[in-house]
Amino acid sequence: MSDTKFDVVGIGNAIVDVLAHAEDAFLEEHGLAKGAMTIIDAETAEKIYGLMGSGVEVSGGSAANTIAGIASLGGAGAFIGKVCKDQLGDVFTHDIRAVGVSFETKADENGVPTARCLICVTPDAERTMQTFLGACVDLGPEDVDDQVVGASKVLYLEGYLWDPPRAKEAFIKAAKIAAEAGRQVALSLSDPFCVDRHREEFLDLVNNHVNILFANEDEIKSLYQVDDFDAALQYVRGHCDIAALTRSSQGSVVVAGEEVHVIDAEKIDKVVDTTGAGDSYAAGFLYGLTQGRELATCGHIGGILAAEIISHYGARAENDLKAVLAEKLK
Amino acid sequence: MSDTKFDVVGIGNAIVDVLAHAEDAFLEEHGLAKGAMTIIDAETAEKIYGLMGSGVEVSGGSAANTIAGIASLGGAGAFIGKVCKDQLGDVFTHDIRAVGVSFETKADENGVPTARCLICVTPDAERTMQTFLGACVDLGPEDVDDQVVGASKVLYLEGYLWDPPRAKEAFIKAAKIAAEAGRQVALSLSDPFCVDRHREEFLDLVNNHVNILFANEDEIKSLYQVDDFDAALQYVRGHCDIAALTRSSQGSVVVAGEEVHVIDAEKIDKVVDTTGAGDSYAAGFLYGLTQGRELATCGHIGGILAAEIISHYGARAENDLKAVLAEKLK
Repeated sequence: MSDTKFDVVGIGNAIVDVLAHAEDAFLEEHGLAKGAMTIIDAETAEKIYGLMGSGVEVSGGSAANTIAGIASLGGAGAFIGKVCKDQLGDVFTHDIRAVGVSFETKADENGVPTARCLICVTPDAERTMQTFLGACVDLGPEDVDDQVVGASKVLYLEGYLWDPPRAKEAFIKAAKIAAEAGRQVALSLSDPFCVDRHREEFLDLVNNHVNILFANEDEIKSLYQVDDFDAALQYVRGHCDIAALTRSSQGSVVVAGEEVHVIDAEKIDKVVDTTGAGDSYAAGFLYGLTQGRELATCGHIGGILAAEIISHYGARAENDLKAVLAEKLK
Repeated sequence: MSDTKFDVVGIGNAIVDVLAHAEDAFLEEHGLAKGAMTIIDAETAEKIYGLMGSGVEVSGGSAANTIAGIASLGGAGAFIGKVCKDQLGDVFTHDIRAVGVSFETKADENGVPTARCLICVTPDAERTMQTFLGACVDLGPEDVDDQVVGASKVLYLEGYLWDPPRAKEAFIKAAKIAAEAGRQVALSLSDPFCVDRHREEFLDLVNNHVNILFANEDEIKSLYQVDDFDAALQYVRGHCDIAALTRSSQGSVVVAGEEVHVIDAEKIDKVVDTTGAGDSYAAGFLYGLTQGRELATCGHIGGILAAEIISHYGARAENDLKAVLAEKLK
């Protein structure tokens, strides 16, 4: 295996989040599926944005959040994703580079704007997401840099990538490069509805291409179409090297063949906004893994990062993650 | 006096804030004047943004923040300011309308982008602002709607308006309309360096056109070029009907001829970010005033709103201001 330059390279939708507080009645009135991520077109995005309250714009995107988290911890991260050459594209590019991530994917100049995710945060801290994919639909295999993927210990993919039409071709190319270079491939299932949309493909991926799987309880149950967490756990056990399954306030379960760890959630004072919880868990876990930590420690680091992110508004860290980790992991 | 449609109409720079955490060493290294607002050109904006950490975008602008605060409290507010027809212009327009403010100024389509203010928030919660005025420089008297200004109880202006070249013409037109309709004119001095830049004009305004003056301690001392708060207080006393002078943790002093109120600051657990403190004080004060409250109560409401805004990151309210006020004012 040749030398690596990056710990993790992520491929995902490059998205700017628009966060606003909303009441449950607002979601019901406008038929928004609470807790889920729904793909919407430009017209619907404009309509929903017009109905939403005053917002805050923050760089987001599931895999991008994860890579940003890894870089904030001191890991070497790279990201592949498509923005447009517009103001929100500049914001996305600035923010991910500002935490030290290598991000060199060519921006679109065809006028299709940078993707945005309209996020309604209800008083229970749950987030409901409506995504306008914008420039993300232009991501294709030509955007996958062989050098970068070949030089990364882990290739990390978000399940949401199966929504835009050509991104899966980018994934196939990247997975091939990673396999040839002897790297590991990690996948996050992203969202139970996303699993519904792409179940057969995800099952094939998990069985044949993925070494490390991230899923929350709803997603893994959706993948195997079972009602019981333990049943899903038994299914996934033999199908990929490592599965890290998150369970909100019940912590996480990490399974790797015979090895199983049940890790308690970190205690926090108040959950403010769950946006980015899963992304941050994956960041902490992969940072630990690429630093050669034991699986239980990787799960613990994931839990620490998830707790940090849900204690404030927005999906990326406000605090010094290195300091948070040093404090919590001692 | 004819009927009014609005409690307060504000004229100001329409700005989107870009907030990022920074250390004091960062300000020193790049020669940024701590605590001040500095006007920068597009090239400098790009350079400083490139150096700043990952940020958050939130609608801002001093007078715009004040009018948004008044509307959030249930007051009827209107705003006049210039954005470009671009993504950040859409964000600004969406956010101010979302809280119920009437905002109908025609957006530029000439490609000069919407203004942004690069705000470095240091660990002591102080904010240091670098403003690229962008489309704001195109605000002129043609943007002042006679109907709106004539139908507002108070015309509110930010001192920062003296920085772009033609905005003062807009002010002169608006002040004339307000005077003819028998309305009150309020001014915020904005920033001690802004006072330095425009002292003679501000003195003339305060002496001859302004009924209600907002200033913090540094600004009022700068206006009269004195080192002592009480000396400044005595100067301003006879020059406008009402002066509301804010003193950070020392609360505020409201003076109106013989009437003087010294109002303690609200107690808060932790100051997170002082961005928007003065704007929020003015919002609370003017809301009280246009609701016919006594001056001491107006100052108290101002203090409550300022305390609310400095308890979180960003210059506009995250919480339900009506509920905050109902809780604190009982």
